[in-house]
Amino acid sequence: MKNAIVLFSGGLDSSTCLAIAKAQGFRAYALSFRYGQRHEVELEAARRVAAHLGAAGHLVLDVPLGTIGGSALTADIDVPKDRDVSHMDEGIPVTYVPARNTVFLSLALAWAEVLPSADLFIGVNALDYSGYPDCRPEFVAAFEAMANLATREAVEGRLKISVHAPLMRWHKSRIIEEGMKLGVDYGLTHSCYDPTPQGLACGRCDSCLLRKKGFEEAGVKDPTRYSE
Amino acid sequence: MKNAIVLFSGGLDSSTCLAIAKAQGFRAYALSFRYGQRHEVELEAARRVAAHLGAAGHLVLDVPLGTIGGSALTADIDVPKDRDVSHMDEGIPVTYVPARNTVFLSLALAWAEVLPSADLFIGVNALDYSGYPDCRPEFVAAFEAMANLATREAVEGRLKISVHAPLMRWHKSRIIEEGMKLGVDYGLTHSCYDPTPQGLACGRCDSCLLRKKGFEEAGVKDPTRYSE
Repeated sequence: MKNAIVLFSGGLDSSTCLAIAKAQGFRAYALSFRYGQRHEVELEAARRVAAHLGAAGHLVLDVPLGTIGGSALTADIDVPKDRDVSHMDEGIPVTYVPARNTVFLSLALAWAEVLPSADLFIGVNALDYSGYPDCRPEFVAAFEAMANLATREAVEGRLKISVHAPLMRWHKSRIIEEGMKLGVDYGLTHSCYDPTPQGLACGRCDSCLLRKKGFEEAGVKDPTRYSE
Repeated sequence: MKNAIVLFSGGLDSSTCLAIAKAQGFRAYALSFRYGQRHEVELEAARRVAAHLGAAGHLVLDVPLGTIGGSALTADIDVPKDRDVSHMDEGIPVTYVPARNTVFLSLALAWAEVLPSADLFIGVNALDYSGYPDCRPEFVAAFEAMANLATREAVEGRLKISVHAPLMRWHKSRIIEEGMKLGVDYGLTHSCYDPTPQGLACGRCDSCLLRKKGFEEAGVKDPTRYSE
């Protein structure tokens, strides 16, 4: 059984991604980050879901993206609400966090060398998304190419790093359908960018709107607890 | 005057690199990391040298590479001593830190978007070095390609990220000669992997041996304070 590392926020996408890695036969380790996100409550969801899905381990790392700022998720900038879900990928909104997936994958790569694991999973999606550049297939391919030149285990031929993005070309509804087949309890997951202190979802940020649309289109009752 | 971000340990190479960035006309910001390195004393050197060279700013970020481990610099593994300096690049020693330069450049990239800066400097060298994979030109080129697909500022055409590695093909002696022309006081810099608590250099790790050889070959008196 091979090890995989799954970037894991405890949201809808990364929870599905972890279930997929397990279904593909990997021993799946979850990797989460406390990066100064205003929705740090997602880390509680991450712990719940990692246990629910039977992750082989769950590492939470502190990363100072809040010190760098430049995003509505880590600095004192309002999270946009009620945007048009069918045009969300036109332009990159202020919820974009500078170089976030690059930083997260880099730390996953460091762990991969030690664990060891040749397989990194990331739940990015370039269909129902906010247009973030580091969610696109060309980014994932470029990161993988770089990773295989960056590390001792790759250069010495012991690991050929693969970055898997199984959700890349799925609509949110399909992500939900596949996850439900694999037994993901989406009621445990957290996607909202701007939750109440109790962890209730706002229902109006990009992440909530995309998630709502996914449940609607999948014809599945939305288990999310909203604040209004 | 354009901004540049210089990865900056306060060692011989990165100090020279910062002086070069300034000489090339950049407003040079220094970026250092507290990453669980046993030689955290290097951060004091970094502060000294950043002030000495007139860095426009100096950011020190905490990064949990010590939690990940896998290196003699961050875990309880002995630092190798007295290795043959002319064969140091054959094989990758235990002082290699998994994905370190990838993680550091990723965080520099995040800062670059916010500062903003299109120019990242890294003092890597593929001649007088320990064979680390993330010090080679092919790694630097692959990181630069990835960076230009990863970030909003690049994708929207406001920044074309360049990763400069001006020391890549210089012997240590030339690095020292160029730095001295630019006024670098190497007595302030720290390179040792295994210093005393007071910050005296061991004189026997790869980093000390390469540094010593550089001063010898440059015909310059070595200003380093050694413990023996």
